Formats: sequence, C-alpha cells, structure tokens
Amino acid sequence: MADLVVNSSTNEQILDITGQIQDELENRHHSGSGALAVNLLHTTAGLTMADLDPGTDQDFLDFLRAITPDIQWRHPHDPSHTPSHLLSSLIGTTLTIPFAGGRLQLGTWQRIILVELDGPRERRIAVAGLGS
Amino acid sequence: MADLVVNSSTNEQILDITGQIQDELENRHHSGSGALAVNLLHTTAGLTMADLDPGTDQDFLDFLRAITPDIQWRHPHDPSHTPSHLLSSLIGTTLTIPFAGGRLQLGTWQRIILVELDGPRERRIAVAGLGS
Amino acid sequence: MADLVVNSSTNEQILDITGQIQDELENRHHSGSGALAVNLLHTTAGLTMADLDPGTDQDFLDFLRAITPDIQWRHPHDPSHTPSHLLSSLIGTTLTIPFAGGRLQLGTWQRIILVELDGPRERRIAVAGLGS
Repeated sequence: MADLVVNSSTNEQILDITGQIQDELENRHHSGSGALAVNLLHTTAGLTMADLDPGTDQDFLDFLRAITPDIQWRHPHDPSHTPSHLLSSLIGTTLTIPFAGGRLQLGTWQRIILVELDGPRERRIAVAGLGS
Repeated sequence: MADLVVNSSTNEQILDITGQIQDELENRHHSGSGALAVNLLHTTAGLTMADLDPGTDQDFLDFLRAITPDIQWRHPHDPSHTPSHLLSSLIGTTLTIPFAGGRLQLGTWQRIILVELDGPRERRIAVAGLGS
Repeated sequence: MADLVVNSSTNEQILDITGQIQDELENRHHSGSGALAVNLLHTTAGLTMADLDPGTDQDFLDFLRAITPDIQWRHPHDPSHTPSHLLSSLIGTTLTIPFAGGRLQLGTWQRIILVELDGPRERRIAVAGLGS
C-alpha cells in the first residue's frame, strides 16, 4: 500500500523527504498541473513543511518536547510513547502539495519534513497524484 | 452543502469517523486511485489522524487543555469558548486522504478523528472526491 | 510560480484571505465539484481556518506566543525569528478546500487565514485546482 519508504536512524529526528516526494512526482509523469496528496501511514510521526537552516531541525524537536505537558497519561500500552502519538495528531500526517510543469510548487526555503518521534523505524508513505 | 453529519455527545470528545469517511468513498464509486478532500465546516472542532488505543482519546484532550495558556481572551462574544476556536485553528479542519482500489490508504493504527471542543453538537463535513 | 500574492502590514498579523481564494476559484471556471490545493510558499507564516469574531485574531497570536517555549535556539542565522519558523511548521502551510458549484465549501464562520509571524512581507501562494 505504501508508495514510499523512509528509514529514520534515531529516536527523534527531522528527515528531509522533499527529494523523494519530487522523485515520486516525476515517476508518475505528471506534465501538467495538479497536486500530490501524501499520507504518512503512522501514528508516532508527523509530516509538515519547514525551513531547514542548520539547527532548526533540533530546535523544532526541542519545541515539541517543551510544549508537551508533564501529565500522567492514561494510555496503558506504553505511556512512554504517548506524547509521540499526541504530537503526531497535532502536527498531522497529511500534506497536499500543488505541482506545475512536473515540479512541486514550494517556496525557496520550504522543505517537506517527516518528524520522527518514536524511531528508529521504517516509515511508509502513501501518495496520490491528482491532476494532469 | 454538507456531505456527512456527525453528532457529538459531550462537551469535549474524540469521535472516530474513519468508517463514515470510508463509506462516503464507497458511495462515490471511485474504483481507481485518488484522494478525498475533507473539510469540517466548524470553528470549534478539529479534524486529524490519531492512534485510538484505550485512553489516548482522553490523553489528547488532556494534552490540548494543558497547552492552552491561561490568558485573558479579547474575544467578547463568549470568552469561555475562545480556546475551542484557537485549538481548532491549530489542529486544522481539513484532511486529504489518498485512496486506491476503493480503500482509504491509512496506516494500521491510523484513525480519522473529529476533535469536539464545544459539544454536544451536530457537526457537518464536506467531502470532495478527487481522482478516478 | 505564485498564483496569489498577499501583503501583510505588521510583524504579526492574521489576514483573512477567503475572498482571494474564492476569486481564484472563480477565475479558474470550475463549475463542477473538486478541491483547491493551496500552499503558502514561506517558512515564517502559516495557513489555517479560523473564526474571526472581533478579537479572535489577536487571541490566536497571543495563544501562539504563549505556547512558544523560552529556549536557547540553535538556529544561528537569526535566533529572533526561530519561533516563527517553528510555529509555521506546527500550524502548517497547506490547505485543501472542497468546492461545489463554483463555491468553496466552508462553514458559516470559517475563514481561510494567513498567519503572519515575521512581517511585514509580501507572501506568495500556489493554488492547484482539482476536479471539474
């Protein structure tokens, strides 16, 4: 079911997947305009856009840790990774990115990032090409 | 204008609407691939993905309450529900979910959730089917 | 590459861009149903939905400032705008909005907002029309 597979190498990590999503667009031979709908098929990681100047990846992970309240979680399975589920829901796992002329329409500094919150793991991604 | 209607039963609640969105996909007879674009037509509730192991629904509501700052809100209409507006904007109300062969492309543990923050209410959802 | 240009006038600001997105839909002559995929081409601003009763725009900016932790950021370029990058990633820069009969499918109180976090600036937006 997955169209792309990405492997994280540490417990918490920002992965730049812009190149893989752009390659996926090229493999589908969309020459006109449209959008790619992307869903990260997991509940302990997220998908969003980011500036990736040096340090901002760790800054974003620091930010996420800092906003996570120190609460007694009810989730009985493994409370230690409950925040990774909740941050995944807050960040979201879906993105729809316009394209034109075979190129993703991104800003100069925009990178598509996978926010790994419970790695290292293999992460699977579904992609639908919409348009011509 | 709404394609789906969901009723919440308490003031704050996580509703699993995966089945209703999958039914909506089937009613539209998409046999190929594409995506469903979904918008929850409200400003005091959100739409996202989540793991729904027992307790994680209440954990997410606890998380949202805990990150909400204790501020004197300016919104004059009814300051008591201002946080529900702001959390709705932070979580978001739109999702676009790829499908293939008539099935939503979701991870094993991914559920589509409606985050009710000002219920109980009737909640209306617009859905657009994109693709073949 | 941009389909729409919006100018913010202050450092932090909520801009209602619903009218511009609706105009963009009309310019594309979509008479059937589908969705508009929108990406804000920047990393220090976000795109989401909101209630815009008087005061809620400033309440959302207060909320975002209040949840931002007081941390020593690593980003060396200009640490003073690091929070604007991180809040942009948290809010997101993409939205996909269903339409039918030439109208965006929005709730009564839903407005499409651009969250300016590092203005004043010219902000560019890419739009892809999906559907008939």
